[in-house]
Formats: sequence, structure tokens, C-alpha cells
Amino acid sequence: MTTVGILGGGQLARMLALSGAPLGLRFLVMDTAGDACAGQCAPMVVGDYRDQAALAEFASRIDVATFDFENVPAESARWLTERVPVFPSPRALATAQDRLAEKTLFRELGIPVPQFAAIDSRAGLDAAIANIGAPAVLKTRRLGYDGKGQFRIRTPGDADAAWAALGPQAPAVGLILEAFVPFQRELSVVAVRGRDGGFRSWPLTENWHVDGVLSASLAPAAVTPALAAAAIAHARKLAEALDYVGVFALELFCKDGQLLANELAPRVHNSGHWTIEGSETSQFQNHLRAVLGLPLGDTRMVGTACMLNWIGAMPDPAAVLCEPGGHWHDYGKSPRAGRKVGHATLRADAAVELAQSLQRVGQALERQAQVASVLERLRAYDA
Amino acid sequence: MTTVGILGGGQLARMLALSGAPLGLRFLVMDTAGDACAGQCAPMVVGDYRDQAALAEFASRIDVATFDFENVPAESARWLTERVPVFPSPRALATAQDRLAEKTLFRELGIPVPQFAAIDSRAGLDAAIANIGAPAVLKTRRLGYDGKGQFRIRTPGDADAAWAALGPQAPAVGLILEAFVPFQRELSVVAVRGRDGGFRSWPLTENWHVDGVLSASLAPAAVTPALAAAAIAHARKLAEALDYVGVFALELFCKDGQLLANELAPRVHNSGHWTIEGSETSQFQNHLRAVLGLPLGDTRMVGTACMLNWIGAMPDPAAVLCEPGGHWHDYGKSPRAGRKVGHATLRADAAVELAQSLQRVGQALERQAQVASVLERLRAYDA
Ligand SMILES: Nc1ncnc2c1ncn2[C@@H]1O[C@H](COP(=O)(O)OP(=O)(O)OP(=O)(O)O)[C@@H](O)[C@H]1O
Ligand SMILES: Nc1ncnc2c1ncn2[C@@H]1O[C@H](COP(=O)(O)OP(=O)(O)OP(=O)(O)O)[C@@H](O)[C@H]1O
Repeated sequence: MTTVGILGGGQLARMLALSGAPLGLRFLVMDTAGDACAGQCAPMVVGDYRDQAALAEFASRIDVATFDFENVPAESARWLTERVPVFPSPRALATAQDRLAEKTLFRELGIPVPQFAAIDSRAGLDAAIANIGAPAVLKTRRLGYDGKGQFRIRTPGDADAAWAALGPQAPAVGLILEAFVPFQRELSVVAVRGRDGGFRSWPLTENWHVDGVLSASLAPAAVTPALAAAAIAHARKLAEALDYVGVFALELFCKDGQLLANELAPRVHNSGHWTIEGSETSQFQNHLRAVLGLPLGDTRMVGTACMLNWIGAMPDPAAVLCEPGGHWHDYGKSPRAGRKVGHATLRADAAVELAQSLQRVGQALERQAQVASVLERLRAYDA
Repeated sequence: MTTVGILGGGQLARMLALSGAPLGLRFLVMDTAGDACAGQCAPMVVGDYRDQAALAEFASRIDVATFDFENVPAESARWLTERVPVFPSPRALATAQDRLAEKTLFRELGIPVPQFAAIDSRAGLDAAIANIGAPAVLKTRRLGYDGKGQFRIRTPGDADAAWAALGPQAPAVGLILEAFVPFQRELSVVAVRGRDGGFRSWPLTENWHVDGVLSASLAPAAVTPALAAAAIAHARKLAEALDYVGVFALELFCKDGQLLANELAPRVHNSGHWTIEGSETSQFQNHLRAVLGLPLGDTRMVGTACMLNWIGAMPDPAAVLCEPGGHWHDYGKSPRAGRKVGHATLRADAAVELAQSLQRVGQALERQAQVASVLERLRAYDA
């Protein structure tokens, strides 16, 4: 009997536990919050990730550890590594935790990135703006998520406001300035690498964000085979460089047919949720297979799929459950503004059916705005 | 927040809980055994189904009740009904619990059945054999499962041995004699009926039993559309007559192109396990949708699928996980002779691929005998 420990007890841990039960796995989740939603599906250790007593208890009850949450302190991950196998490795985690390290690695590997510069001071910010130009985005290097810890600089005159907003965090988490990319599309590669180096990618996904938070995903993304192959090749190079084990996502901007890497998420990813129903093997099951050294499952898609995120509160499920390929995912969380509380996946054999389904759901839930961009893209599928 | 109570904590309850979590449901399982495998996926009340204190605790913590196990005493189900909604109804359950009541209902509804007779005494057995003829099968009316409580009568001279084996149980559970059906095939209809009377059936499944226990299932069954339609019409008539709510299976024999009903399983069924990966909506999710009055999901198949039962102990998963459409289900049970400990589902877009996959798995696991009949049938698909 194998017990998988998961650091972080959110919806990703929850879906990992649900997808791992058929493999005969047990789970133990560690989270700082006693009401973390994965606790409804697996036993939990409640404690701070820096609390050695809690970590020691966690380690003593598991056979292997992985993450739902990439911002676990790297020292805690390293401490765990001395006690149990940990996948992905603390080194991969540390790189992905730091936007500067991550972008530096992208560049070293020949993966195109927006211009960027580390920022240590107010003067450094001015120099970087002079060099990179505006618009640009000032971000914390560490601990950002869902668009938090970011400030958009439209003109050099915004430097004061940007520094007022994020400067105080510079000593603790570091800052980075990135050129703003006026992209036409956001894409992600969700892929998995096994302990033996085997690599598989799901088809490319197109993503739409609202206020920095993922709102909708569409797979397969309507891109040329060459672009998809290039994106997947970037992901593979990255995984190999990091000797990565498990599922990860590489987020990319696409501007005028060119790819620019935005970030690496060292875990199962929101833009891969459609794989639960849309692929032969879900990202959750393949992450566990990778972590355990089991054969990886087929990442082929069945038809076409769209994922809609539910933020803040769950809508009425009926409109989705009525759809022929409608699937509901309620994370069992209490409602809160800005919180990811669930998602729906619509699957169909053909793009035209998916569009019809999406239109009906958008209308029934009065979420026309959320589905509009996806619908527009689906029209382009046919053209 | 809705909590679904499940009477019985075996693999069916376990798979119900796993499939209901995405609907935001909580579960509470009741079982007589503290180590029932659903207890790994949901909280549990341990107690006898006749123990009113345990039942009362169970009832107080749930919003609706359903079954993993049909042999819950009908009085306990009725007692529960006074406290919470129970689906399927105790009446449907009571009919399905008793082979005599069940077969009598089949006959009333015009669903063909093998000849049968209730047996109350040794003399009654002789009279029934004289009337029905041999070969025949003597069975307990109640509490039989997996071929237990059955005695095969080959010639009238076997009556003594049959009575010695099952006669002592006659007062407690009743006996029935059925004509032995020299069938060519065993088929099942797995179907669901909603609270609003909506009815959906998955494609017909063909099943192979070994020593009275399901060994393999193949869907869709290779039968004529007319035969499939007739089987599904029988299932629908039955569900309507019982005002049934939830998933059920109607097991049928097929002899010379004629259907004969064998039994009704008033719950999700082993022959429907392939629906987890092989259908847009699994039997588990649709059972919960029915019980909760939610819209039923699409029961359409995606490709073709074969389910292999693991009895006694789990084989090595690698051979199945290597297959493009290979899916593993370990119920988390300890090994024991004759026990259903898990299953695998192989899914493929085309029958020829499924056959190749099945052949590889049969060989790798040295289970050629288990896959042989399915392979033979798959060859007939193409012919
Ligand atoms: N350099 C940029 N140019 C243009 N848009 C950007 C840039 N950086 C970020 N964005 C926008 O903000 C979104 C969130 O940014 P980013 O992925 O860096 O942050 P995050 O907080 O890590 O988000 P997540 O948790 O969703 O991955 C991006 O998906 C994109 O829409
Ligand atoms: N009348 C019959 N003629 C021929 N074979 C029969 C007959 N009754 C039972 N069998 C064989 O025995 C198997 C199990 O019988 P049955 O379904 O009645 O028992 P059970 O214990 O309720 O099984 P399960 O739990 O699998 O439904 C059948 O699937 C069939 O292979």
C-alpha cells in the first residue's frame, strides 16, 4: 500500500486524490488551513510548511511526496527529500518559484522570452524601464499567483506608482520587470515526464484570463502543427534540463505567430483540467503515474473540449449537466470573491457541437462574456 | 452541501463516492465491516443493518440514501424511508431481492423468463423437476450473489444432493427451481431512470462468468440492433413498473436469438464498470444524478471497451497501464480467494485495436483463458 503525500490541499490535491484512488493509492495532504478542500477526499496534516514537527509527521506517514502548491519553501522541500522521494525535485521547484531564475533558464535553453530585468531598487526600475521600454509589467519574483503581485506600467511616469505598490516587497520576494507583450493568444503546453525520462504532452491549449485569473481554456488550440510542435519542443527541453518528474505547464504568449515563454508551473495546472474528460488519461492520473514510476498513459484527446472556471461562487449546475458532454467540478469550497471554486468541462466530438453547447451554457448562466472569446475562436476552427 | 448515504461500503460505494465528489457531494457509508474499502474514500458508520441505533446515526447525518448492496433488510430500508428519501425505493429493492417476486414480475410484464417454480419442500422439488425437467438450477430466493446459493441439477437423480445442499436454507430464504438455459450469450442492460421518469440506457454489454462470478464484459455487445432494442425495452418496462430511480442492471440470457431475463440488480453493476472510461457519463455519476434529481448525463459510448475483473488478488498493473486505452481500478482490498479486488478497462476507438490490446494484456498477465472468449467475439465483430 503506497501513500502519496501532497503539500497543499486545494483543488489540485483534491483532484489528484480522486484520480489516484483507482490506482489503489492512499493520500495524505498537508495544508496550513484545516478546511482545505482536499481534506474532504483524503486525511490531512494541518500545519505551516516551515513547522518541522508537522513536516516530520507528514513525512513519517507517506512513501513519496508531491505538490499541489509550488510556493512551499524550498528548504522544506529539501528537508523532505532527505526523508522520502520528492517529485518534482526541489531544484525544479526552486527554479519555477522564481520568475528570474525561470526566465534566465528559458533564455539559456533558447526558448524565446519577453525582455526582462531583475529590479533591486527604485533607480534600477528607472534604468530597466529606459532599457525595456513601456508598456511593461513589474512583478514579484516569488509568491505571485493568479495575477497577484503584478503592476502594469503603461508609461515611464507609472514608475512611482509601481514602486509604491511593489517596492516594499522587493527585499523579501524580489522584483522583475518584463516587457508587456501585446499577444494575440495565450497558450499552454501541459506535459508529463516520467522517472525514466519518458515524455508526453497533451495537445496545446488556448487560455483566456480575466483580471489575471484563468477564465476559459480550449483544447486543442487552433494553431498550426508547426507552432504546436515548437511549443511542445520548448516544454520538452525545459523538462529535460530540470530532470523534471511529473506534470507541468509551460505558459506561452503567441504574438504574430511567435511564441514567448511566460512561466513554468511545476504541477498539474488549471489549463489541463479538461484532460479529465477530454483525454484518454487525465493530467492528474499521469502526474501520479510519473511520480510513482508507473507507465505513463496516453495523452491523446478524444474530440474537443472547453473548460470554464467558476470564480467566487458556483453557478447552478443544471445548465451544464443538461449538455451531452457537460461535466461538473465543484471543489467543495465555500464561496469567496476571486476564489477558484469549481469548473465545468464541455466535451464534444466536433468543434461545431462544442460551440453550440458553449453558447447554450453561456446563455443559460448569463455568462456570455466568459464564453465569447472561445466561441470566436471556434468559428476560426472551421475557417 | 448534500450528503449521500450509501448502505454497503464495497467497491460500488467507493466508486460512487469518487464519482460524486466532482458534483460537490459528501458521502457517508454504512457497512458491517470496519475495513470496508469505501471507508478509504468516505466517512463510515460501522454497524449491522438491523441495528436501529447505527441506522439512526446514519440517517441523522445524510440527506438521501442509496445502496451499494441490495441485500439490506427491506425493513431497514423502509425504516430509513420515514426519515430520509431513499432511492431506489424499498419496494423496488424488495422485488429485486427475491428471485421469485422478480421473475413473477418479469412474466407479468411480458418479459420472457426461463420456466421457474417456488420450492417449499422436498416433495415440491420432485414435482417441479417433473414439470420443468432437467437440467435445472435450484437457487435460494434471497441473499444469493456471485453464483452463491445455487445447485445445478443435471438429472432428476440429483434432487437428493440439491436438497441436502440447499434444503436447510428453505425456511429462512426460500428456494426456487429454474430451467437451465443452454445460452450462447449472457447480456446485460445497464440503464438509469431519473426521479422525473427520464430513462437512458448504455449500449448492451456482453458478459462472461467463471464459476458464477463475472470475469469479463464487452461493450457494445455484438448483437443486432433489434435484439438490443428489445433488451432495452424490457429494461425500460421494468423500471417503469417499479417506478425505479437510479441505475440498475437487467441480466439476460440469449439463446438462439431469444432473450430470457435472469435477474434485476437494483444498483450500479459490475457489468457497467466500463462506463467510467467508455462512456460520456459513468453509471456511478448517473446513479447519483438520478438519486439527486439532477439532469441525467449522456450514456453514449466512446469507441469500444472491455472490462476484466480481478478476483482474489491484483495482478501487476504495468501491463494494463502500458496500453494506450488501459485503465486500472484497485479497490484497496486485501487479497482473498474469490473476492472481487479490482478490475481493468481497455478502451479503443475500433474493435481491432481493442483485440490487439486484450491479446497483449492476456499474454503479459498469463490470463489467456480470461480474454479468450472476448477475443473470439471481437473477431465476430468484423465478420
Ligand atoms: N509580460 C506580460 N505581457 C502581457 N501580459 C502579461 C504579461 N505577464 C502577465 N500577463 C498577463 O497576466 C496573466 C497572469 O500572469 P502570470 O502568469 O505571470 O501570473 P501568475 O500570477 O503566475 O498567474 P497564474 O497563477 O495564472 O499562472 C497572464 O496570463 C497574462 O494574461
Ligand atoms: N437458469 C440458468 N441457466 C443457465 N445458467 C444459469 C442459470 N442461472 C444462473 N446461471 C449462471 O450462473 C450465473 C450466476 O447466476 P445468477 O445471476 O442467478 O446469480 P447471482 O449469484 O445473483 O450472480 P450475480 O451476483 O453475478 O448477479 C449466471 O450469470 C449464469 O452464468
